[in-house]
Amino acid sequence: MADKVETPVVEKQEETVPVEGAAKEGGENASKKAQKKLEKEQEKERKRLEREAAQLKEQEENWLKELKEDTLKENYGDYILVQSQEKTDRKWIQVLSIDESMVGQTVLIRARLQNSRVKGNVGFLVLRQQFSTIQAMISKNDVTVSKTMVKWVGKVPCESIVDVYGVVSKPETEIKSTSCKLELIVNKVYVVSRSRAQLPFQLEDAARQQKKEEQLAEYNNNEGDIEESKDNQASVSIKTRLDNRIIDLRTPAKQAIFRLQSGICQLFREYLLSQDFVEIHTPKLIGGSSEGGANIFKLKYFDKDACLAQSPQLYKQMCIQSDFERVFEIGPVFRAEKSFTHRHMCEFTGLDIEMSIKENYHELLDLMGDLFVHIFKGLETKYSKEIEAIQQQFPFEPFKIKTPVVKLTFEEGCKLLKEAGIEQNPLEDLDTVTEKKLGDIVREKYDTDFYMLHRYPISARPFYTMLCHDDPNYTLSYDFFMRGQEITSGAQRNHDPVSLAKRAAECGINVETIKDYIESMAFGAYPHGGCGIGLERVVFLYCDLYDIRNGCLFPRDPKRIAP
Amino acid sequence: MADKVETPVVEKQEETVPVEGAAKEGGENASKKAQKKLEKEQEKERKRLEREAAQLKEQEENWLKELKEDTLKENYGDYILVQSQEKTDRKWIQVLSIDESMVGQTVLIRARLQNSRVKGNVGFLVLRQQFSTIQAMISKNDVTVSKTMVKWVGKVPCESIVDVYGVVSKPETEIKSTSCKLELIVNKVYVVSRSRAQLPFQLEDAARQQKKEEQLAEYNNNEGDIEESKDNQASVSIKTRLDNRIIDLRTPAKQAIFRLQSGICQLFREYLLSQDFVEIHTPKLIGGSSEGGANIFKLKYFDKDACLAQSPQLYKQMCIQSDFERVFEIGPVFRAEKSFTHRHMCEFTGLDIEMSIKENYHELLDLMGDLFVHIFKGLETKYSKEIEAIQQQFPFEPFKIKTPVVKLTFEEGCKLLKEAGIEQNPLEDLDTVTEKKLGDIVREKYDTDFYMLHRYPISARPFYTMLCHDDPNYTLSYDFFMRGQEITSGAQRNHDPVSLAKRAAECGINVETIKDYIESMAFGAYPHGGCGIGLERVVFLYCDLYDIRNGCLFPRDPKRIAP
Repeated sequence: MADKVETPVVEKQEETVPVEGAAKEGGENASKKAQKKLEKEQEKERKRLEREAAQLKEQEENWLKELKEDTLKENYGDYILVQSQEKTDRKWIQVLSIDESMVGQTVLIRARLQNSRVKGNVGFLVLRQQFSTIQAMISKNDVTVSKTMVKWVGKVPCESIVDVYGVVSKPETEIKSTSCKLELIVNKVYVVSRSRAQLPFQLEDAARQQKKEEQLAEYNNNEGDIEESKDNQASVSIKTRLDNRIIDLRTPAKQAIFRLQSGICQLFREYLLSQDFVEIHTPKLIGGSSEGGANIFKLKYFDKDACLAQSPQLYKQMCIQSDFERVFEIGPVFRAEKSFTHRHMCEFTGLDIEMSIKENYHELLDLMGDLFVHIFKGLETKYSKEIEAIQQQFPFEPFKIKTPVVKLTFEEGCKLLKEAGIEQNPLEDLDTVTEKKLGDIVREKYDTDFYMLHRYPISARPFYTMLCHDDPNYTLSYDFFMRGQEITSGAQRNHDPVSLAKRAAECGINVETIKDYIESMAFGAYPHGGCGIGLERVVFLYCDLYDIRNGCLFPRDPKRIAP
Repeated sequence: MADKVETPVVEKQEETVPVEGAAKEGGENASKKAQKKLEKEQEKERKRLEREAAQLKEQEENWLKELKEDTLKENYGDYILVQSQEKTDRKWIQVLSIDESMVGQTVLIRARLQNSRVKGNVGFLVLRQQFSTIQAMISKNDVTVSKTMVKWVGKVPCESIVDVYGVVSKPETEIKSTSCKLELIVNKVYVVSRSRAQLPFQLEDAARQQKKEEQLAEYNNNEGDIEESKDNQASVSIKTRLDNRIIDLRTPAKQAIFRLQSGICQLFREYLLSQDFVEIHTPKLIGGSSEGGANIFKLKYFDKDACLAQSPQLYKQMCIQSDFERVFEIGPVFRAEKSFTHRHMCEFTGLDIEMSIKENYHELLDLMGDLFVHIFKGLETKYSKEIEAIQQQFPFEPFKIKTPVVKLTFEEGCKLLKEAGIEQNPLEDLDTVTEKKLGDIVREKYDTDFYMLHRYPISARPFYTMLCHDDPNYTLSYDFFMRGQEITSGAQRNHDPVSLAKRAAECGINVETIKDYIESMAFGAYPHGGCGIGLERVVFLYCDLYDIRNGCLFPRDPKRIAP
C-alpha cells in the first residue's frame, strides 16, 4: 500500500495573541504614586508573558523533538496538501458499509474527527461521515502505535479530516454513542486537513435533540447567539446556525434532511416520467413584470426592465400549447415578500407541473394524489435511515397518508369547520389558523396528514382560473395540505382567449399588459391545469419541523442573503 | 360511450374588417371634378362591400341551415368549453401506440389538425401529436358521415385541437408523409379548441429540412421575417420563430429536441445518483457581487445589494465542506454578457457537479468520462425516435464517443496543433477557432466527438484553481469538448485557506471581499473538485445544430427577454 508523502508531524499552533492587560483603562488622572504602581504592574505582566512564551517555545521544541525521535513516526502525521501528486490503489471504505463480515480486516476510512478523549496510553476517537459515526480506539502497543502517537492524536482539533487505518473489531460492550456498532483498532492516522481549533459552536450543541417547543424557541431567538438553556446545555440560535451554515449542516440530522430533500426530487420525477411527463427549463428572467405584479424582484436586463419569475406558470402553460402535453420543472422561484413567518422564504424551490386534461380536472387531482403517495411511500421505504437520523434530533410523528387520497370540496371543508363550531364564509379564502384547524379535523376524521381541498371560491383565485360550470362563485382550483399547512396551489386554467380576456378585465387587469398570455391560447389550446409545490415545505412538514429554513440549505428571508 | 355535450356545429367566422380603400390617401388638393370622381368611386366601393357582406351573410345562413338540417349532425361539431363538466370512461389513444394489432378497432384520438385536403365527398386530414403524425380519411357514407360533415371538416382551421373517432386501417399504398403507417377511417370529429385561421407562419415552413449552411443563414437572418429562399419555399427567420415560440416549438424536430434535453437530465442524474451524489438547490440570489465581479445582473434585495448567481460554484463547494461529499445541481445560471455568438446566452441551465477527491483529480475526470458515456449511450438507445425526428429537419452525423474517454493534457493538445502546423503558446488559453481545429485533429486521430483537455496554463484559470504540484505554470483544471466546442469547465479547487488567500492576492483580488469563501475551508476541508456543464450546449452540439438557441425553450440573449 503506497502512502502519500508526509510532512514532519507538526500541528499548527494557534497564534497566541499577547494580552495587553487592563492597564490602559485606568490611570489617566492618577497621582504619580499610582502611575508608578501601574508601571510596575505592567513590567510584571510583561515578564510573565515573556516567561510564558519561553515556556511555550520550550514545550513546542520538546514536542517536536519527541515527534522526531519517535521510531513509529511513519504511522501518523499531516499529509502535505493534496495536489493530485499521486494515484495509488488505496481503497477508502464508507462507515455505512462496515458490517460484521469485516471483523478482523484492516480498513482505511476518511472521515471527520468528531471528538477524541485521550488519557495516557489510550484514546477513543469518534469518526463521522455524513450521518454515520464509528468509534476508533487507539492504544499504545509499541508495534504500530507509540505513546507519542496517542498524545499527538489527542491534539488534533475536532472537525479535522483524517485518514484512519484500523482493524474492524467487535467491542465487548455495545457502543451507544455511534451509529456503527463495530469499532476500529487504529494502526495509523493521518491528518488530511486540519480544522481551526475554535469552532463557531460545538457540533454536539448543534446536534442536540430539539422537541417542537424548543424549535419554536430557537425560531423566536432569531437575533440571539449561543445561550444556556434551562438545563445548562448550550443551545445554538437559528441566527448563529445560519451565519455558520457549513458547520450547522454537518450535524447528522441536517445531513439526513437534505438527503431526504434530494429523495423527494427523485421520487417526484420518477413518478412523473413514468406518466410521460417531460422535464422543462423555463427562463427566470422575465421582461416587464411577472404575472402577479406585486412582490417581484426587479432588475435591469441591459437597457430593458426585467424581473425574476414568481413562478414558471406562464411558461409551463405555453409549453402545453406547444404540444408538450405534460411537463414538469424543478427550479427556483422568487418572491419579494416581506413575510416574517416560519413558512415563507424569498427564494424557494418549486416543483411545478402542468398537463393537458381531456375533460375533467380530477384527472390531474388523481394523478397528483398518486404522485404524493409515491413520494411518501418512497421516503418510508428508501430513506428510513435518513428519517431515523432526523428523528434523533427532531422527534416527530410518522407522516400519515390515506389512499385513495382524501379530496374535499371547499364547501365540504366549511361544513366540517362548522360542525366543529368554527364559522367560515364559504365564499372567502381560509386564513392559516383556520387551515390548521381544518387539518386537525381532517386528521381526526380520516386519519391522514395529507389531503386536497378543491373548488375554492372565486374571490380566492386569480383571473386565469377556470370557473366551475355549475356555479360561477367557485373555481376549478385546489390546494394540497400537509399537517394542516398548504404546500401546493393549482387549478384548471381558462384556455379560452375570449372569456379569459373578459375575466381579466372584470378583475381590473389591463388586458393589453397580458396580451401575449392570452394570445398563446389563440392557436388551438388544450384544456389544461397544473400546480406548484414548494419543495422546502414538503421537507419541513414531512419532518414536522417548526421552521421552513430547516428545509433549505441556504435560506433567503427578507433579512438574510448570505451565506 | 357518453360524449360530451356539444354546441350547434357553428365555427367562428374570422371578423371581416371593412377596408376603407385607398381613397383617404389622395385628393387633398384635387379639383372639384376629381373630388366628385373620388366620391363616386367611394360610393361604388361602399356598395361593393355591402353586396359582399350580404353575400357572406347569406352564405353563412345557408351554411347554418345546412348544418342544422344534417341528420348526422351529432357526429361532428364544436365542444362547448371544457370546464370539467363531465367525467366519462372514454379512452384517448396516443398515435405512437397505434400498431397493426389494432386494425379494425375504433379508437379516439385527441390531436392537432395539422392540415386537411377536402374535395367533394372525401377528405384527408393529418393529425399530429408531438412528433407523431397519422392520416385520417373522411368519406361520405351516409351512415356516420354526411357530405355536409366532410365540408365542415374542410373548414376547420389548421392547428385546431380535435377529437377524432376512427377505425384503424391499413392503407393500400404506403403513406409517406406521416410517421404512423396506418390510417384512421373517420366516424366522428369534434373541435376541442379552434385555432385562429391566420398563423404567424405555416408549420410546414418551420419544419422544412435545414442543412448546416441553411441553419447558418437562418442564424444570420436575425432581424428578418419570413422570406423566400432560393427554391421559392418560404423560410422562417430565427426572429420570427422566437417571437412566436409556441408555434415554432410544435414542429416535430423541436418537440424531439426538448424531449432529448429532458433525457439528458434524466441520464445525468441517473448516473450520479448511482454514484452516491446528492441533489442540492443553492440560492440564485447572492449578496454583494458573485464570484466573478464582471458580467453580473445586479438587483436590490429589499434594502441590500444583490446579484444573480453566475454559477453555484461557491455554494456547491460549501456543500462539500458541509460533508455532503458528492453533490449535483441542475439550475439556471445567469451571465450578463453582451456576447452575440451562436453559443452564448444570458441565462442557461447548468448541470453542476462537485465532489471530494481522495488523492487525484483523475478520480473526477474518470467519473465524468463514465457519466458522458452513460449519457450518450443512453440517448442512442432510449431516444432513437427523437433523434430520428430531429434528423428529419436537421440532418447530422451521429455523435461519436470513444471509451475510455480520450484525455489529453493541454501541452499534448498544443503538440497536436503544432504537428498540424498551428502555433499555440502552451502558456496561453486557446481561442475558439483553435479549439475547433484541435477538435478536428482529435476526431481525425481518435475517432471521437468528445474529449477532455486538462492541465490548463495558470493564465487561463481563476485564482481558486489548484496548481499542479510539479509545475506552477499549470493547473489541475480541465475543459470537455463536443464536436470541438467547449461544454464544460472545471478543476480541482484549492482547499487550503492559507495558499488560497495568497493566490487571490497575487491575482489582485482584495482578500477581504472573499473572506467568507476562504473561511469555509478553515474548519477541515476535503480535497475536492467539480465542473459545470451547459445543458443547452450539450443539446445543440449533440445534434450538431448551428445555433444554441435551438437547444433552449425560451432563449435569453442580450436582445431578447420575451417570450
